[in-house]
Amino acid sequence: MAKDVAKLAIALHKKLGGKIRIQPAAPVRNRADLSLVYTPGVAAVSMLVAKNPELAPQYTVKGRMVAVISDGSAVLGLGNFRPLAALPVMEGKCALFKTFAGVDAVPLVLDTQDTDEIVKTVLAVAPAFGGINLEDISAPRCFEIERRVVEALDIPVMHDDQHGTAIVVLAGILNSLKVVGKKLANVQIVISGAGAAGTATAQLLYAAGAKNIIMLDRKGIIDATRSEPHKKELAGFTNPKGIKGGLREALTGADALIGVSGPGLAKAEDIKLMAKKAIVFALANPIPEIMPDEAKRGGAMVIGTGRSDFPNQINNSLIFPGLFRGALDHGVKKITQELKLKAGHALAALVKRPTALKILPDMFDKRVAPTVAKAMAGRKAIAKAIR
Amino acid sequence: MAKDVAKLAIALHKKLGGKIRIQPAAPVRNRADLSLVYTPGVAAVSMLVAKNPELAPQYTVKGRMVAVISDGSAVLGLGNFRPLAALPVMEGKCALFKTFAGVDAVPLVLDTQDTDEIVKTVLAVAPAFGGINLEDISAPRCFEIERRVVEALDIPVMHDDQHGTAIVVLAGILNSLKVVGKKLANVQIVISGAGAAGTATAQLLYAAGAKNIIMLDRKGIIDATRSEPHKKELAGFTNPKGIKGGLREALTGADALIGVSGPGLAKAEDIKLMAKKAIVFALANPIPEIMPDEAKRGGAMVIGTGRSDFPNQINNSLIFPGLFRGALDHGVKKITQELKLKAGHALAALVKRPTALKILPDMFDKRVAPTVAKAMAGRKAIAKAIR
Repeated sequence: MAKDVAKLAIALHKKLGGKIRIQPAAPVRNRADLSLVYTPGVAAVSMLVAKNPELAPQYTVKGRMVAVISDGSAVLGLGNFRPLAALPVMEGKCALFKTFAGVDAVPLVLDTQDTDEIVKTVLAVAPAFGGINLEDISAPRCFEIERRVVEALDIPVMHDDQHGTAIVVLAGILNSLKVVGKKLANVQIVISGAGAAGTATAQLLYAAGAKNIIMLDRKGIIDATRSEPHKKELAGFTNPKGIKGGLREALTGADALIGVSGPGLAKAEDIKLMAKKAIVFALANPIPEIMPDEAKRGGAMVIGTGRSDFPNQINNSLIFPGLFRGALDHGVKKITQELKLKAGHALAALVKRPTALKILPDMFDKRVAPTVAKAMAGRKAIAKAIR
Repeated sequence: MAKDVAKLAIALHKKLGGKIRIQPAAPVRNRADLSLVYTPGVAAVSMLVAKNPELAPQYTVKGRMVAVISDGSAVLGLGNFRPLAALPVMEGKCALFKTFAGVDAVPLVLDTQDTDEIVKTVLAVAPAFGGINLEDISAPRCFEIERRVVEALDIPVMHDDQHGTAIVVLAGILNSLKVVGKKLANVQIVISGAGAAGTATAQLLYAAGAKNIIMLDRKGIIDATRSEPHKKELAGFTNPKGIKGGLREALTGADALIGVSGPGLAKAEDIKLMAKKAIVFALANPIPEIMPDEAKRGGAMVIGTGRSDFPNQINNSLIFPGLFRGALDHGVKKITQELKLKAGHALAALVKRPTALKILPDMFDKRVAPTVAKAMAGRKAIAKAIR
């Protein structure tokens, strides 16, 4: 990141003292207002909800409020920063939730990194919320935490590092394949990084119809010889040809490389091993796995990064605001793989004629959140106005 | 509560769908804004806070955000309504926090009523907050929960049902005593109800200098023969003359009655047992322990209730917004008994010449929150502007 951006960001945060504010939804100007918003009138609402808990989303913030929850164990992929240092990121997400999709989101950072305690805490605070966005929790703990919370609650829950990334990568790959004139079922896709983002991306691309995904972690290509449960599971549906080795072996003849592992992954000569019209997504922030000019020198045709200063920014912000907006509006109780696929296809469809320099809509494109939200509606899609 | 207030409150809550909204503190209009509020700029702030956790209150919402947390076990004193039905009350408090003192407050309602789990949950979510307002937790669990959370955290924590009530009652008693021309050290004060509010009120009045407090619960006057630890503790500093019996025995010759136990406590003939110029606070909501006209028939001179439709409304809203405002502004880590006394005296002092019909300032008196906030400042009092 440029030094002046860092400086400006620090100055802005100090000036603001926190990036969100709470406002009353209706003014409390006098005793009459007070008697409705608070005692005695509020007692009638409490009694109504006590008798009819299913009315809570209509009468309380439960119908509109999402918790953005992190344990600070994988802050922006920078490291285990602990809860306080995760707070600026969670606040930023809350600001984007409101800006892009009118969702009221609250940041919560947890003073524990124990899987059981995180699950218990999230379940304990869940009643006030209509959705839970888990964030920046390190792998493999994030998989178990998300699974257990999803199973226990009947509100939408999603670890955005996994599925937000996976959905936007799916959209990017769908449109990139149009640009290079290839089919998802036929291409060889290499994913470097088997953490939160890599794992969910592999699962979603596979669900979308990709048949030849090769995953790499620090030890090289993941195959059936791996013993860790999480890697074993990945080996179950990836690397169908049983290729052994590392990055170069995986890239040989590959059509797409998706980097979610960190800087310094590949050079131009590695990219040269790929098939013609290669697609390279280098998503590490702030320094990509390979810089766009280097990937281009290697012959890549479509190049995307997580950064806003290069073409084709591939960023979760295209997904999470609209996805939770839609889940709240349409009473979605689980964010299923089917809904994620629909969101990815809907986002991709917003770019009518994708080109090598324009595979995804701009984050400030006002169609994005309503389109993703609509994808949550099932067949009786009703695009509710964004509040 | 009047039927039309109930109807209007229900209609308003349905229209609003939750009584608070989250807003970004700064607009996110374009990529430049985004790069400061979120990635990549936010990474610089996260790294700064990771290295210097003590800076978190300056750079995040921790410096301004209070959690209003309930388990729904004693909602408005109406009953154990569970978390969802507690939510409208907590949202209402959050609206008042902002309206009266510019404090950004978030409602959290917990899906557990287990003491250990509540304590663990509150500690786990604490990092994002600069203060914790516990609310509507039933006695005696509220005492242990508050004690353990206060001990574990270095941010202000207060169960408002206990201390908010106690502070405003102290202020009311101080000014009522001026009206009737009696001294706190000499009067006999009867408190009906040894739950959250009654216990804290007794403790604070005792700390303020009251020497003859008699407490009643369902079994009658609390004395040294009681075996429950919490009642034993109360017996340790109340009922100095060892009076035995019930309400009538306690009221005989008493100067003040504070009802925090529920409707149907006393009649005019009970009040007639009291000393001349008696003070009666009947604080149950919506139906007081004794109606003001009945207390008047019994000869009471100063009468207060929790209701806005009678003179002398004695309501926590006079205290909690300013108290947390001051605690945040002045870096208060514990709300000590000394600070509560200061808050009570400061609130009382706002009414220069108390009368039987005006012992406390109006809730919409703009001096209230800054005055209470200033009382949190210690000797180097600086009244910061309300943001």
